Amino acid sequence: MWITINRNSGISLSRQIYCEIKDMILSGSLNFEQKLPSSRTLAKELSVSRNTVLDAYNQLIAEGYLETRHGYGTIIAKVILDHQIDFKLDYTSEIRDSLHEYKQNNYIDFCSGIPELKLFPRKELSKLYKQILHDLSHLDFRYNSTAGVWKLREEISQYLFRIRGIRCSPRNIMIVSGSTQGLSLISQVLYKNNQKVIVEDPIHKGLLKVISTVGYSVVGIQVDDKGINTNLIKSIKDVSFIYTTPSHQYPLGGILPIQRRLELIKYAVENNCYIVEDDYDSEFRYEGQPISSLYELNPNKVIYIGSFSKILSPAIRMGFMLLPDDIIDDYKSLKMYSDVHTESISQYVLAEFIKNGGLEKHIFKMKKLYNRKRKYLIDILNIEFTNEFKIKGQVAGLHIVVHFYNVIFTEKLINQIYKANIRVYPIQQYAIENKAEYDHEVVLGYAHLNFDEIEQGVRMLRKIIHTN
Amino acid sequence: MWITINRNSGISLSRQIYCEIKDMILSGSLNFEQKLPSSRTLAKELSVSRNTVLDAYNQLIAEGYLETRHGYGTIIAKVILDHQIDFKLDYTSEIRDSLHEYKQNNYIDFCSGIPELKLFPRKELSKLYKQILHDLSHLDFRYNSTAGVWKLREEISQYLFRIRGIRCSPRNIMIVSGSTQGLSLISQVLYKNNQKVIVEDPIHKGLLKVISTVGYSVVGIQVDDKGINTNLIKSIKDVSFIYTTPSHQYPLGGILPIQRRLELIKYAVENNCYIVEDDYDSEFRYEGQPISSLYELNPNKVIYIGSFSKILSPAIRMGFMLLPDDIIDDYKSLKMYSDVHTESISQYVLAEFIKNGGLEKHIFKMKKLYNRKRKYLIDILNIEFTNEFKIKGQVAGLHIVVHFYNVIFTEKLINQIYKANIRVYPIQQYAIENKAEYDHEVVLGYAHLNFDEIEQGVRMLRKIIHTN
Repeated sequence: MWITINRNSGISLSRQIYCEIKDMILSGSLNFEQKLPSSRTLAKELSVSRNTVLDAYNQLIAEGYLETRHGYGTIIAKVILDHQIDFKLDYTSEIRDSLHEYKQNNYIDFCSGIPELKLFPRKELSKLYKQILHDLSHLDFRYNSTAGVWKLREEISQYLFRIRGIRCSPRNIMIVSGSTQGLSLISQVLYKNNQKVIVEDPIHKGLLKVISTVGYSVVGIQVDDKGINTNLIKSIKDVSFIYTTPSHQYPLGGILPIQRRLELIKYAVENNCYIVEDDYDSEFRYEGQPISSLYELNPNKVIYIGSFSKILSPAIRMGFMLLPDDIIDDYKSLKMYSDVHTESISQYVLAEFIKNGGLEKHIFKMKKLYNRKRKYLIDILNIEFTNEFKIKGQVAGLHIVVHFYNVIFTEKLINQIYKANIRVYPIQQYAIENKAEYDHEVVLGYAHLNFDEIEQGVRMLRKIIHTN
Repeated sequence: MWITINRNSGISLSRQIYCEIKDMILSGSLNFEQKLPSSRTLAKELSVSRNTVLDAYNQLIAEGYLETRHGYGTIIAKVILDHQIDFKLDYTSEIRDSLHEYKQNNYIDFCSGIPELKLFPRKELSKLYKQILHDLSHLDFRYNSTAGVWKLREEISQYLFRIRGIRCSPRNIMIVSGSTQGLSLISQVLYKNNQKVIVEDPIHKGLLKVISTVGYSVVGIQVDDKGINTNLIKSIKDVSFIYTTPSHQYPLGGILPIQRRLELIKYAVENNCYIVEDDYDSEFRYEGQPISSLYELNPNKVIYIGSFSKILSPAIRMGFMLLPDDIIDDYKSLKMYSDVHTESISQYVLAEFIKNGGLEKHIFKMKKLYNRKRKYLIDILNIEFTNEFKIKGQVAGLHIVVHFYNVIFTEKLINQIYKANIRVYPIQQYAIENKAEYDHEVVLGYAHLNFDEIEQGVRMLRKIIHTN
């Protein structure tokens, strides 16, 4: 029988014999009822032990390729093929995933929402992983609670009170794999046919897509310098929830004042809908304290979403939600049948990192750094553009919005900037309607850039804008 | 003004002043246009610095609670309340999440699918977390590829070839947060109105719920000792996909022979649907090699789901899918708007654990242990029940199915067993139809139990059954 075996391949000899015979059957070279040599004969032929051949034959019998006929021997079973099967796929020549190009970039990218990851607390977390992996009970490596690790929920409850003044029970805290998952799951939980979702306009387009993917029709409400204009929502009916970023409107940066907050709550109570409060970067406010939450005004109507992406790293995919009592069960059931629960080990690590004060220390350090970067960016803008611009939004977050009085960010201009290896993000890209209203404005994210890059980037921008 | 501050609370004085005033406004004790004392006066009154009071006032102005009138001072802004807001929630008295009771259990639980976690490779992974957290570029802490970390996909591709004989490109490998998420996402990707899903009957009820939650009507096809009976599917139309466990039918344990596999493929081609192959524990086969995959017979029609829950731990929520080219884009888009990507750091750790041979060493060790436990369980069954039972399914996995000739597992009997602190799982609980057919059979999971528990558990079972 024509079987080639390779004693240096690292694959066991019986596996090789098994594969060769299987391939011959599936490619049609061996046919129904054809008799195979006895294991003794084939073993001799290939200079292997008889057990090696028997192992291969038994595997082929178990999978239905071979049959034994008593007193006759081993034969090929009936295997009806519609087409030949080609196993010779070579995966080694495949090119790399194009998504990974970003790692080789050499452009200055003013994208928003990326923290300074050169200061990611590697050492501290490394120690905590060691400690946690040592200390956990073996039961902690089983399936865990769908709502999240209890210890983490306790720590977040206390953390929220310390840093945000939010009073809530760990029982209402649900751990999610990043705020995107939180928004996705809650959109599904609240979904009813033909209901709408009210969102801010402009908005983070990815999160808009999360909501629309669930099947909602979306109503964008224009934002002014104080956030969502609550006068415009009063006449809207059949609303499932209102998605809002009241502490720091994304991307424009306004704070929603208490009067509008109370109007939102009133609307939610009267229309029996919910408010989803996305508190994506409230920790970074450089003047005064973090803004109070909408949640505390009515914990029965507000779903609060928090994230560790901006304060630690998006790679860890960790966030949480505060849920009203009446939707917790529906939520848990959906989370259970979506991914059972969020990965446990890093939940324990994060709980310890909050408990030992490491997280708040990290936030404090980053806040000082981001404030310096923000000031530096504005200084450079003042040098390069003097009176040609104004800054919008409050003194907070990982990005600023710049309004250039005499510049219109046309596609052509954005392309020229792109070709000069600079990335800026026109507010038009975030707008659902009235795009023209924002054509003087861009987002400049600065948190992840170093001072040199900020300076070079703004200088480059001035060159392109002024020669235009 | 009636403000009490506590110098030992750990909360900053300005925060305390801010909170007190805000609470007075929201509870109606301070009214519209009422004038506040000047910052200087209040500072004196409370014996704090003037800046402390100014910080509090500025925060309240930013949030819209206060307004300044030039030449007049600071007044309460108009805040219209529908109801008083009570902030005095006390979370410390809350009881613990009931889901956590399992940790205090002292019963012998023959549940299936839980690996021996006392041997979870803590030290090895601890070292790898340290190494990975040290070695990664800061760019790796950003958002990563939706499909998963490329390095892990490469390692899985080679691992699958070594351990399963599967040839596939890393480009077709998608990292998911456990196989449950894989099944949930793929069910959503393939969803069309009024389409059905064919499943095996009996089946894992949790996974059935994952499929039905998406909106499908589900058709259960009876399983015999060789897995799903493919003759029964031929007349079914409008099928989105067939969900199957061909290597080790769950829970009954049969291997789907090559003839039925080819019939499944033929059906999928002719009816333009997919086959979802859940390969949940194929690594643990104690006689012969792992069974070949359905996937290799037609990578354009089969979606392969693999999991690290059984070979490492369910807590890490890590799995993968092999996807046909034509649905990769739809899948990536859905995953993107579900949770962006699976947590990256443990993906890098797992990649390294596969690369350095640790995972296969671990599997080898566990396989030997599980085989011993399985034999021990059968030995004890033989001692306690001699000829009163038979074992169903192949010599594989983390559980066995036992058929007791003279025992019917009524609810009453199960309750008696339950009261004796033993948990066994009647096959009836897994059956969609024809429950009566399985009333002599139970699942006994053994992987996570120690030898003593196995012995005690079976002895207890005999006592209850024989006195019944």
